[in-house]
Amino acid sequence: MSAEEKEKKKKVDPRRTIDPAALEVMDKNDGQIETAYDRYVKMQPQCNFGRTGVCCRICLQGPCRITKKSSKGICGAHGYSIVARNLIRAICGGTGAHADHSRHMIYTLTEMFAGKAGDYQIEDFDKLYRVADRLGISREGKSDEDLLKEVYNCAVSDFTKLDDEPCKWLETTVVPERLKKFQECNVSPRSVHTTISEVMGQTHMGVDSDPVNLIFQGLKSSLADYVCMHIATDISDILFGTPKPVYTEANMGVIDPEMVNIALHGHNPLLSEMIVRVSREMTDEAKEAGAKGIKCMGICCTGNEVLMRQGVPVLTNFLSQELPIMTGAIDAMVVDVQCIMPGVQAVSECFNTRIITTMSHSKIPSAYHVDFDEEHAMEKAKEVVRIAIEGYKERDESKIDIPDHTHNVTAGFSFEAMEDLLGAVSPDAPIKAVTDAVDSGQLRGVVLFAGCNNLRVMHDQSHSHLIKELAKNNVLMVATGCAAGTAAKMGLMNAGAVEEYAGDGLKAFINQLNEANADKLNGNKLPLVFHMGSCVDNSRAYDFTNALAVQWGVDTPKVPFVASAPEAMSEKAVSIGSWCVTLGIPTHVGVVPEVTGSELVNGVALQIAQDVYGGYFIWEEDIEKSVEKVLAALDERSWKLRVHQQTAEKYETTLTKTW
Amino acid sequence: MSAEEKEKKKKVDPRRTIDPAALEVMDKNDGQIETAYDRYVKMQPQCNFGRTGVCCRICLQGPCRITKKSSKGICGAHGYSIVARNLIRAICGGTGAHADHSRHMIYTLTEMFAGKAGDYQIEDFDKLYRVADRLGISREGKSDEDLLKEVYNCAVSDFTKLDDEPCKWLETTVVPERLKKFQECNVSPRSVHTTISEVMGQTHMGVDSDPVNLIFQGLKSSLADYVCMHIATDISDILFGTPKPVYTEANMGVIDPEMVNIALHGHNPLLSEMIVRVSREMTDEAKEAGAKGIKCMGICCTGNEVLMRQGVPVLTNFLSQELPIMTGAIDAMVVDVQCIMPGVQAVSECFNTRIITTMSHSKIPSAYHVDFDEEHAMEKAKEVVRIAIEGYKERDESKIDIPDHTHNVTAGFSFEAMEDLLGAVSPDAPIKAVTDAVDSGQLRGVVLFAGCNNLRVMHDQSHSHLIKELAKNNVLMVATGCAAGTAAKMGLMNAGAVEEYAGDGLKAFINQLNEANADKLNGNKLPLVFHMGSCVDNSRAYDFTNALAVQWGVDTPKVPFVASAPEAMSEKAVSIGSWCVTLGIPTHVGVVPEVTGSELVNGVALQIAQDVYGGYFIWEEDIEKSVEKVLAALDERSWKLRVHQQTAEKYETTLTKTW
Repeated sequence: MSAEEKEKKKKVDPRRTIDPAALEVMDKNDGQIETAYDRYVKMQPQCNFGRTGVCCRICLQGPCRITKKSSKGICGAHGYSIVARNLIRAICGGTGAHADHSRHMIYTLTEMFAGKAGDYQIEDFDKLYRVADRLGISREGKSDEDLLKEVYNCAVSDFTKLDDEPCKWLETTVVPERLKKFQECNVSPRSVHTTISEVMGQTHMGVDSDPVNLIFQGLKSSLADYVCMHIATDISDILFGTPKPVYTEANMGVIDPEMVNIALHGHNPLLSEMIVRVSREMTDEAKEAGAKGIKCMGICCTGNEVLMRQGVPVLTNFLSQELPIMTGAIDAMVVDVQCIMPGVQAVSECFNTRIITTMSHSKIPSAYHVDFDEEHAMEKAKEVVRIAIEGYKERDESKIDIPDHTHNVTAGFSFEAMEDLLGAVSPDAPIKAVTDAVDSGQLRGVVLFAGCNNLRVMHDQSHSHLIKELAKNNVLMVATGCAAGTAAKMGLMNAGAVEEYAGDGLKAFINQLNEANADKLNGNKLPLVFHMGSCVDNSRAYDFTNALAVQWGVDTPKVPFVASAPEAMSEKAVSIGSWCVTLGIPTHVGVVPEVTGSELVNGVALQIAQDVYGGYFIWEEDIEKSVEKVLAALDERSWKLRVHQQTAEKYETTLTKTW
Repeated sequence: MSAEEKEKKKKVDPRRTIDPAALEVMDKNDGQIETAYDRYVKMQPQCNFGRTGVCCRICLQGPCRITKKSSKGICGAHGYSIVARNLIRAICGGTGAHADHSRHMIYTLTEMFAGKAGDYQIEDFDKLYRVADRLGISREGKSDEDLLKEVYNCAVSDFTKLDDEPCKWLETTVVPERLKKFQECNVSPRSVHTTISEVMGQTHMGVDSDPVNLIFQGLKSSLADYVCMHIATDISDILFGTPKPVYTEANMGVIDPEMVNIALHGHNPLLSEMIVRVSREMTDEAKEAGAKGIKCMGICCTGNEVLMRQGVPVLTNFLSQELPIMTGAIDAMVVDVQCIMPGVQAVSECFNTRIITTMSHSKIPSAYHVDFDEEHAMEKAKEVVRIAIEGYKERDESKIDIPDHTHNVTAGFSFEAMEDLLGAVSPDAPIKAVTDAVDSGQLRGVVLFAGCNNLRVMHDQSHSHLIKELAKNNVLMVATGCAAGTAAKMGLMNAGAVEEYAGDGLKAFINQLNEANADKLNGNKLPLVFHMGSCVDNSRAYDFTNALAVQWGVDTPKVPFVASAPEAMSEKAVSIGSWCVTLGIPTHVGVVPEVTGSELVNGVALQIAQDVYGGYFIWEEDIEKSVEKVLAALDERSWKLRVHQQTAEKYETTLTKTW
């Protein structure tokens, strides 16, 4: 990098967001309290070896870096091996994170069966039956608890088994062609845990140096990730209910200075669901402390979990997680696992916010810690709320300054909720409402917005821009995770946005659903972007794709469905993107991952993957080009789908090639 | 780093070995063919952020590097969190590698029980009974196969289970005080696979930032590593026999220009055992090709496996693995998993050596690949040998130049073999022969040399120097892995070395064993360093420590036993070192791991670990100081042990504190 470039990089403006609430807080603070935005600027320039994936730290002889001078590592590893190894360890990190989440759901069932988790029970029997049916478990003559036990045993098996039978959660959620493909290419995971262990072994010093072989193992890990994510969502729905439409608000204006304000942050609903419940029962305690009551608000995916099921307002998303503390009115920020910046602690120390860690394997030095366990869930939840109430009592009113920005939000669109809405238009086959709209050209296809925020790009900008442009182009949109967070905060997750941004086709489609579901919606109207849940719930979006494939009678690589993670940040995003591709979905990523140091690995991601699996990556940071590329990917598929249908109709034959 | 320092670093001499055979090959080549020694020089200077552990690449916002300017990562992670996360992911990599090895042993049993692995059978019934007894499995009325199935079920459970009962292989191989300590500190692993998955989840972006909590999870992973290593050794012994003394030679002079020469390299005995067997049956095919016969030789730990059980000569150890190819007389190098430099392929292309990869998850681009599976083990072994014979036919005689360096080697000292030898002196309690010798001051203690080679230090030098100096100081020495490789190559693993280097006490101790076992040794004499097996067999050395603890009636932190890895290189070494510490053993490492970027994490390794677990790390690169520190660690324990014994005798009481 030239001195000039370095200087330019150094001068990055820390105001890297388009969220007006975030900007307001940031401007008032004027850099006095350091946040991620400032640390990003300080961190420039960043190491380009790491950035392009050619830095190897796998053995104690390293670090080795691929340069013109040294084109191989000390052991003789080529750049392609190093890049591939780093990549699949990242996928494995994502799988490990989701496995942790999912395993906690399984442990909760273990405790329930042992009579030790009385605060949890089956909330959604229909979901239990649906999952049991899907897994091929007969319900005849079985109690609900017995049925849940059988589901549980399947989940434990998918997590732990050593044999090479396909995981049940993979086998029963994809079209047969997909499963066959996975088995042919040896990417069908033995189990979640076995696969994670395999990746760590295969990437050890002096094991695999074949980049394609490594990447295939990475894809296997991504499918293990899909399995454990789907398990987590299914168990969450059984225990806490499958989301249905809810109506609330988003962005920092939701903070009420007269309430005890609790921010719920992280990714796990096990404790946060309990906190939301007990906070409703503890109003008197809050009143005794002088507050009007207790208000819970969500950050990241714990926020999405309680939004989807309880209608809890959205406070903010990943990147701006430190900023609500700076309003001076957050009494406690309760965190569980994943995407919690350790930086929240230092910011909290300038205000009166208690950071409360709650999981024994996820602590922050100096923070409060309430050690959550399933056996004492409600009790622990109350302990947490009481710490918040104590915080309220000691608030410094002079520091309170809440930005006045909110937007209405309609959320709660599990796949089941979507089916329910679509069923009002197409009762026999709900999903046909979508396939018909695509076939007729009313809709151009379906896009999932998923993933995180990343300071490499302007916070919330790519999400917002893509949503608006795709709306104009009549694309039906679903969203999860921090992408959904952006849509909520930026006013794109309500009926007003349909009016403002939707093209004629999309508008007509949504209005048809509004009319057909008028009785259910109680005077509300559907949003521009349908919130499908937290990032662990991305399997809901795949259920949607799969249903489209089944309805069209094709394998997923023919379905005009694209995933987009414009601001991908975490290893989970790398893993989710990889399973999207393996499951046949074109996947746009707005932040180029650390693979460009190897043309070979990059080529596999962008091209070879398509030849083998039908899905492929699109790296595109430019927001205008991103719109074009996502639309092109949809159009290519719509076009092929029409050819397929015409051919099938004309010759009454099925195509021999899967795509 | 100053310009001058950089210049100095650049001028590193690639002749970084004291192995005379390696030097001879290297000097003849004169840098024309690039090897690891040259690549190390080219790689200088190496990145100091990576080297000290303060580079974080866990999310796509990175890399972040801790500097004076930016004291935290973008997310706010402190250096201590980053260092701790990197460290425990390295431990996890080591655990993953050993899990892979061990899982293959388990799969072989799975195939055997399914009647699909006819080439494998129970070879060592005594070992099976010993393992079954240790696990608490009743043998009454059970067939050997049933017994093996029960052992297998225990192993599968230790690999996969989700509950928090201690793993059987941990529970039954450590003194009760250790197990209690592990449970108190929450480092007892649920199972091998669950723990690996936990580490990957806990180290994901925004999960744990508490360095102590992270390190404890790392120690849990290291104990999972211990569990799977012990399982691998036990099953290997059952299938291939528990090692007994064998007599052979070491170093590159073992290559016979008139034979078909096959180098066996990697870590797994499953295929290499078969290759050694079939090569003896295929002499005629070799003769038809014009050779005198077939000669197998070992590199790294596949070499150690076939040395220990079959007396196969030692060709070389890790760092010099590329050099035997340059003798022009290696017809095939058969590799399985771990520590195989991809660099061997490029070197082989300058000669007539076939590199043959054999495991589907461990390939090298351009190499031959024979896909090993348990069902066709012998057939695959023959296929491999035939490729070598074809290679022999095409040899270029003009390129053959074999360095004339060999040493006699006595190896094969499994813990059972050691007990057998010691039992000739102390029939009722074999291990008492050692405790008595330490109590009387004849021996100063026991040291395990383990671990790899690492170009950061002079190849083979630290091992050799420490062995000679500790011998002089009457330390009983056992060795595994590439440390054993050094001892073998450098003439320190035979009776001559006892004469040359042992102090009076050690000499008397070994001679007493020689005399008492004269009938068994058939005129041979015992070596200076006792070879306990491949690096996966380090659990044999722990069984030794544990037996000493039981005999003395103390917990392991009181036993004068020290582990030393003077040239540690791989993540496996990081993991093994960590379980040594957790199991109560002072552990010298001659290459400082990537933890010095955090005083806190470094302090935990060097000091806090001792307070909690009794074991601790000693980082020391200077070879003279290493000798002093290892001896001091032994002496401190011998002294305490004597105080303990005197106190116990005098007051007839047991000490309340574990150490």
